[in-house]
Amino acid sequence: MTDATASAIPPAELDVVAVGNAIVDVIAHADESFLVEHELAKGSMRLIDTEQAGRLYDAMGPGSESSGGSAANTMAGVAGLGGRAGFVGKVRDDQLGEVFAHDIKAIGVEFVSPPAAEGPPTATCLILVTPDAQRTMNTYLGTAGLLTPGDIDPAFIASAEVTYGEGYLWAEPGAKAALTHAFATARAAGRRTAFTLSDSFCVDQNRAEFLELLDGHVDIVFANEAEICSLFEVDSFDAALAEVRARPGTWALTRSSRGSVVVADGVVHVVAAAHVEHVVDTTGAGDLYAAGFLFGLTHGLGFADCARLGGIAAAEIISHVGARPEAALTDLVPVDLRVLLT
Amino acid sequence: MTDATASAIPPAELDVVAVGNAIVDVIAHADESFLVEHELAKGSMRLIDTEQAGRLYDAMGPGSESSGGSAANTMAGVAGLGGRAGFVGKVRDDQLGEVFAHDIKAIGVEFVSPPAAEGPPTATCLILVTPDAQRTMNTYLGTAGLLTPGDIDPAFIASAEVTYGEGYLWAEPGAKAALTHAFATARAAGRRTAFTLSDSFCVDQNRAEFLELLDGHVDIVFANEAEICSLFEVDSFDAALAEVRARPGTWALTRSSRGSVVVADGVVHVVAAAHVEHVVDTTGAGDLYAAGFLFGLTHGLGFADCARLGGIAAAEIISHVGARPEAALTDLVPVDLRVLLT
Repeated sequence: MTDATASAIPPAELDVVAVGNAIVDVIAHADESFLVEHELAKGSMRLIDTEQAGRLYDAMGPGSESSGGSAANTMAGVAGLGGRAGFVGKVRDDQLGEVFAHDIKAIGVEFVSPPAAEGPPTATCLILVTPDAQRTMNTYLGTAGLLTPGDIDPAFIASAEVTYGEGYLWAEPGAKAALTHAFATARAAGRRTAFTLSDSFCVDQNRAEFLELLDGHVDIVFANEAEICSLFEVDSFDAALAEVRARPGTWALTRSSRGSVVVADGVVHVVAAAHVEHVVDTTGAGDLYAAGFLFGLTHGLGFADCARLGGIAAAEIISHVGARPEAALTDLVPVDLRVLLT
Repeated sequence: MTDATASAIPPAELDVVAVGNAIVDVIAHADESFLVEHELAKGSMRLIDTEQAGRLYDAMGPGSESSGGSAANTMAGVAGLGGRAGFVGKVRDDQLGEVFAHDIKAIGVEFVSPPAAEGPPTATCLILVTPDAQRTMNTYLGTAGLLTPGDIDPAFIASAEVTYGEGYLWAEPGAKAALTHAFATARAAGRRTAFTLSDSFCVDQNRAEFLELLDGHVDIVFANEAEICSLFEVDSFDAALAEVRARPGTWALTRSSRGSVVVADGVVHVVAAAHVEHVVDTTGAGDLYAAGFLFGLTHGLGFADCARLGGIAAAEIISHVGARPEAALTDLVPVDLRVLLT
């Protein structure tokens, strides 16, 4: 797709730029009975309003706050691996907005979206981590949901080799329009696009639009097993795989401890998961998988190696609380992959 | 001291109530060169103003936020052990103030101080954790420093068996006056008082006032090796011990991996440290030692067992990032101590 115009495309200044919800996570431990009592579907993300957020926060145990947001976590991972990443998302000029902006810039991501001077507060995600390390997310979108196509700087998008976006943006029409505008801008500049399906409930609510988006506007798709099965309304990973193999583009499908499967124009790569000593909190696993994959892809790795690097980044994030890397990710890249990086 | 009026003292509703700075910690990893570059004395606490806080935050790596404040951490520990704890401290009605209030109440501490509707923001402490797990603290006091004697509810203080306060309050005259007022209130109600020296620089700046306070107004003193040496202007722990043995009251002296020494009316108990698999972040070690000690003291343990429980609580807090307990502290109390608790 990009070949025809390749000669006219200037070298990319950034590896990946992402459009996503700018969110600060509030992470607390909870037992299974808490999820039952508050009617929360384990492992999923749901949107909550101010009142619901207040009620849930009052009931939750003590938390720790750290910057989050799915696509933002992915960009933090790309930067943590030594890649050049950018992020577009909306925060308020409040304390948590300052936290979000500080953290993403401190890890080396270009984040130039100005904070909003009015409107709802910076988005927060109340995350409950159960003893099995599963995370259940309750997102109050606040200012993050007010993203519009006007927030997309075409030059910023065009400067990146890949533009990445999250399905979560479908929660708000303006945010959705911002991403499709960014994708169109990227394609017009001869760049590639990547998209994560985000959440199986999210897929369920937006199936037709997601299928339409993926049909011709997206080069690389990220999905976990539940999401890809939901997309094609099938019951098994095998059935989903058959659907994916019949389609063009690159599909990176994650399967938790079973590793991942990459299908690129019908060719299948099956890659084992990286070893994790002790899974503490799965928040950010998919986000960091995408980070490793996209960093690899923009640094000359083949698909199987991209998947392996994705697994390594995911393994780091699930071994501690929080969805942003604590360890220096560059130190975790094995020598045999390091020598292949361009 | 309390014996004379013992018959007139009603049963305590709380085990411990603390007066302290209400602070949200911002914890980031940093290497040694960062401390050198920013002229930070490793292991210490310094006060910074708005401008210094902004400059340091800009230079710091990505952080994670969690409720802190030395005496507040201690109360969280007492509550985490199943004790009845209260806290008096000042936050603003901003996002971080809400975080502080939520977290301390969520762990079970009675916190009724209303948030200030105006003035500086909620206090933050920029904490840099070096690879050796040492923490270096930079506190922007904000609203926390505006505590005054008017914030002390005499009935709340009188309801607690022990009133606990931190030397850090000497940073502001009003906060200092609030604590001395609380101590006087506690004593008038026939209750006991406890005080932590907080920091060796803090001791250095307030030596005369601390010595005056300890001479007759404090029943239980907490100090680490550097602090107790600074207090008596001596070079060795042994020399400090001689000073302490000549004085009345209970002195709980912590020595990091060498455990702690308790001197009670001249009698010395030497207690080994609890085993820690891997020290990650020493933030809150002294705070949680005080928590275990005070919980033990108000639940019938002898001094040596109080010190042992203090060591167990400290061991939990230094095995992860952050100064509030992550594990259920009650599960960590060994059976031989548990059977002694009243």
